[in-house]
Formats: sequence, structure tokens, C-alpha cells
Amino acid sequence: MKVWELGEFGLIELIAKTVGKCSRSDLVLGIGDDTAAWRTEKSVQLATTDILIQDVHFTLNVATWRELGWKALAVNISDIAAMGGTPSFALVSLGFPPETEVNNVIELYRGMKELAKKFDVNIVGGNISRAPVVILDVSLIGKASGNLLTRSVAAPGDQIAVTGYLGQSAAWLRMLKSGLKFDRKTTAFLREAHLRPQPRVAEGQILVQHGVRAAIDLSDGLISDLTHICKASRVGAKVWIDKLPIHELLKASFKKEVRGLALSGGEDYELLFTTKSRVITELTNIMSTPITVIGEILSDASGQITLLDEQGKVVKWTEHGWDHFKSPRRGKP
Amino acid sequence: MKVWELGEFGLIELIAKTVGKCSRSDLVLGIGDDTAAWRTEKSVQLATTDILIQDVHFTLNVATWRELGWKALAVNISDIAAMGGTPSFALVSLGFPPETEVNNVIELYRGMKELAKKFDVNIVGGNISRAPVVILDVSLIGKASGNLLTRSVAAPGDQIAVTGYLGQSAAWLRMLKSGLKFDRKTTAFLREAHLRPQPRVAEGQILVQHGVRAAIDLSDGLISDLTHICKASRVGAKVWIDKLPIHELLKASFKKEVRGLALSGGEDYELLFTTKSRVITELTNIMSTPITVIGEILSDASGQITLLDEQGKVVKWTEHGWDHFKSPRRGKP
Repeated sequence: MKVWELGEFGLIELIAKTVGKCSRSDLVLGIGDDTAAWRTEKSVQLATTDILIQDVHFTLNVATWRELGWKALAVNISDIAAMGGTPSFALVSLGFPPETEVNNVIELYRGMKELAKKFDVNIVGGNISRAPVVILDVSLIGKASGNLLTRSVAAPGDQIAVTGYLGQSAAWLRMLKSGLKFDRKTTAFLREAHLRPQPRVAEGQILVQHGVRAAIDLSDGLISDLTHICKASRVGAKVWIDKLPIHELLKASFKKEVRGLALSGGEDYELLFTTKSRVITELTNIMSTPITVIGEILSDASGQITLLDEQGKVVKWTEHGWDHFKSPRRGKP
Repeated sequence: MKVWELGEFGLIELIAKTVGKCSRSDLVLGIGDDTAAWRTEKSVQLATTDILIQDVHFTLNVATWRELGWKALAVNISDIAAMGGTPSFALVSLGFPPETEVNNVIELYRGMKELAKKFDVNIVGGNISRAPVVILDVSLIGKASGNLLTRSVAAPGDQIAVTGYLGQSAAWLRMLKSGLKFDRKTTAFLREAHLRPQPRVAEGQILVQHGVRAAIDLSDGLISDLTHICKASRVGAKVWIDKLPIHELLKASFKKEVRGLALSGGEDYELLFTTKSRVITELTNIMSTPITVIGEILSDASGQITLLDEQGKVVKWTEHGWDHFKSPRRGKP
């Protein structure tokens, strides 16, 4: 059945059924009123929003609707994770053409629901709308679980570290674009990285508990996101490119290209943070997620990032990650 | 200058400058980090989101960018008003083609800023993105200022009342579509109603203070929105169509069509509420905004709405307001 056959209000009922009963005890009103409402004690609340647009952020011939739902929520949860917070409530603005299959819309909400359940997030509102392409904008509310992790407090002498591995999300796009073929395990690994990213919520909270104060999530690409930290903190940075954490499966499949993918591929949704080396040692001992030191914060107010190779020589790098409007890869008309 | 010439991060800086310093003392972090953050005391928080899409909700040949910005925020503030709350923080997801003029984007934020200032709302985050058409999704946080106004507590015997006047927003669209010409005053009145709606925040709070509990804002159209209340409250309603509050300028310009515009035109952004007649009398005495009783809640669990004319005869009415996917006016492909 097509969406235009069912109509807006029939579809809203189906969506509400898919989203199901809200489980959080702090919720006062979910889907079905003019706004969502929830109770708070004295606290610091967080909010973020991120949009996915068809043929800009994804294409429907490679992502399933369920994966889309997962990813749209995941990228927002990742932002809450980067503040050291816990996510709580999501609002969803969804636009699509009237000839869209009802079942696809429901699959999309199932994908969101699957991830939401994992993090005790309730989908409590939003709207659906006719649109020329699929548009999926998730807004997410959260709560700080202690001090906030911010971009503006990186200090000279801090080590720069990242969680997990870099580059495999962008590698999946590269694979598709270049028509590369890999074994089933590698293909699944790359696809999962791009379409079902795992936001680092628990990791963000552990960072806060151990006194880390500066962090960002890696969405635009390592160089671009580290530049955001450096500019906000009025510092510079050096990065040792041989230290970049690259997964064995990525190394084996992309060889020379891996550093480029890790430096500016983007959409890793790992956390990058800076702190004293003593704290890094503590964290390495207690966290099951891999942590890798990749560089150091410098007292250079220009925000400059210097890349160094294994011999300590400066490496030139011109591709600086995703710019929505300028990127020679996709942005410029 | 076009957006693609300036690039994403240059534009973000310009937008941050336009949005300006945040004035609210409860704000912890605004634009420039992974999420916005604000302090709350023990309270009930509210959140809503609404999207405007080019050629679905507006066309750029009739609305200015500044009006668009105003309206996108206004429709969200109206949702907070319909809960009896006060708005506080807005997040903005904005998509547009790379060949968009930088100045137009800035004008859009100026429009939002103008309204935001009026209601002490701070724009604290969001994102910009390339898109095939202009997409403007605002998410808005607010706080309950007492009990909540909800859709689900209308009770048989309640009077149904609305603030302000109905139909002039839809009349502006009708005027454009039919190529009608009116005097300057009427034209400005209709344009203002459609493109610069005034959310009823103060009115919503007065309703709460006087014990009103059931309300909704009129966005889909009177019949459609009253149906939402009736279904959520498991009641029915009768509406006296000769009581509909229609402004003199609208009566003079649209004559016979005015009732249709008021019943199902939509986008009025007035409040519809139900309460005891004693409370209506109180409210009429103290509110400067006009309040008009237009009907009564009935104990009919089917959610049926009956329209009655000045002789008490039942009027048939088939046009039930806006459905995004089914509407014969715009929805069906």
C-alpha cells in the first residue's frame, strides 16, 4: 500500500503503534499531543538535531529503510555521547513522496526503535510530511551525567586519543563508488560501520568519570573534527599518522588508501578526546573499547594541525573532510 | 555571494554572528558544540518539532526568506503555547541548494531571531546541509508554566472556544491561487496572517492559570484539529457555524467562502480550548485577545463533529482540512 492511499492520519496511527508504549518513567506525554513533555529534577539537559537527506547523505539503492532509521538516530545519540550525556527522548521529522510504500516508512521506524531500545530512548513526537525526496531529521534530548565534555577546553600538552577504529565507514562508500569486491566478512564489516554505527554513550560517561573534559564525536572526519576542537580551544595539534587505529579488515582491503580514509573519510562516530597521559593510562586499563593515542595538543592559537609520519617528518594533506557546500567530492554544483 | 563559494564552515560562522549572543541565564552551551546544554530546576520540559519544505509548505516566489524564518519558528512556538508552556531554546536544521545566496540564508535567520527575541527564545544549535529544495526544520524546547493543556481531557458539557479570528491565513493562499486583488490593507492583513503568525503564548498561560485543561493549536484547520481533541478525549462536538469569529476584512473580501476558510483552511495558529462556561466568562473579562465560544463538547465517543447553522439545522461539510498525503487540494499524486 502506498502512503497516499492510507493518508496522513492513518499512517500516524500505524507509526504510533510501531513506536509502541513509552517505557521511561520520567515521560509525561509522548506522541499524540502538541508537544512531548517530561519531568526533570535539577539537572543539565542536552539537545541536538541532525538531518539525513536522500541523495545527499544516503541513497535508497544501497541503504535499507531500517538502516536509515537506525543511522538517523545513531548520529544524534553520538552527539549526546560526545558531551558525556545519556540520551532520553527523540522527535522525528520525516518527509517522503506520497507514492512511498507504507511498509518502508514502518521499517524506518523499526530501525529507529531497535536502536532506541538499546539506549532507553523513547520516540515521543515529530511529524510526517510530503516531500520531493526522503528527509529524516531527528532531534534528541539528553541529560548530562556529570561534567560536560566540550570542544573548547583542550589544553597544550594533552594527549589526543580516539575510541575504536577509523575509516571503515568511508571505506564502504569508496567500495561502492569504485565497484570494489571484498569477501563477505569485510563487506559486512564496512556496511555495518557506515549504516549501523554504534554510538559511544557508555564510553563518553566513563571519560567524564575519569576527569576528561574535551571531546567531540567524529562525524566530519578526523582532521575536520580535530580542527573544531583546536579552534574552539585556541590551540594546535600534531597527529602521528602511523598511530591511527585502523582495523585489520580495512588494512587488508584498502592498503595505501587507509590513512586517507581515517584522516578525512568521516562518519566514524567514534569519540575523539584530549587529556593528560596519566588519565589515558587509567582509561586503557578499565575500558574494553580500544583507545588509541594519535597525537598531542600544542600551544598554537591558530588551530593548525600538523601531520607527522613515522620518521617525524611533516606530511602534507589537502583533503580536509566533508564540507556540505564546497566539497569537491559532492558539494560544489 | 553563493553558499558554495563561502562553504559550510564560513556560513556557520556568519549564522552564529546573526543569531548573536544568547541572553538566557539558564543556557550552559549554545551554538558551537556537539549539543546545546541548559540548566533546569525540578520542572516539566516540553519539546516539539515542525518542518517547512519548499513547494509543499511554501513557495519562494511569495514568501520572503525573512518571513520563512519567522514562520518556521512561530509554528513551533504555537505548539508550546497550546500546552500552556513557555518556549526557551530552538534548534534549526536547514537544507538548501549550494547556489542559494548567502544573504538569503542570513535573512532567514534574521526572521527567526526577530520572533525569538520577542519570546526570549535562544537559537542554540542545529545544522546546515545541502538539499534539492529549501527545508527548514525547527525543534523547540519549552517549559510548562503550571498544569499542562492537553488534547485528551475535553469533557461533555464543556464550551468550545477559540482565540482571535479564523480563516485569514488560508484566505491569503486562496487569494494568490485565484489571482484575486484586494486593497492594500486587506492584502497586508492576509499576508501577515499567513506568513507572520503570532503564537498565543501569553494566552495559553492565562488559560492554565484559570483552570483550563484541554487545548490544541489550530494548524490543520478547525474541524481537523477539533477532531484531534474529540478523538483523544473520546467525546463528540457540535459547532455553530454562525458563531465562527471572522474578521471584518475577511468578511468583506471573501463573502460566502469565509466559513469554509474558517472551518478547514488551516494555519490559523490560534488556540482552541474547551472548559466550563463559567471559566469562559472569567477569561472574556480579563483577556485582551478576543475569545469566541463556537460550540460544545458532547458525550459521543465516536469523535463525531456536528455543524449547525443559525436555525440549528445540521450542515454537511466534506472538506476536512489538510492531509499531507491524501488532500485533494495538494496531497494526492
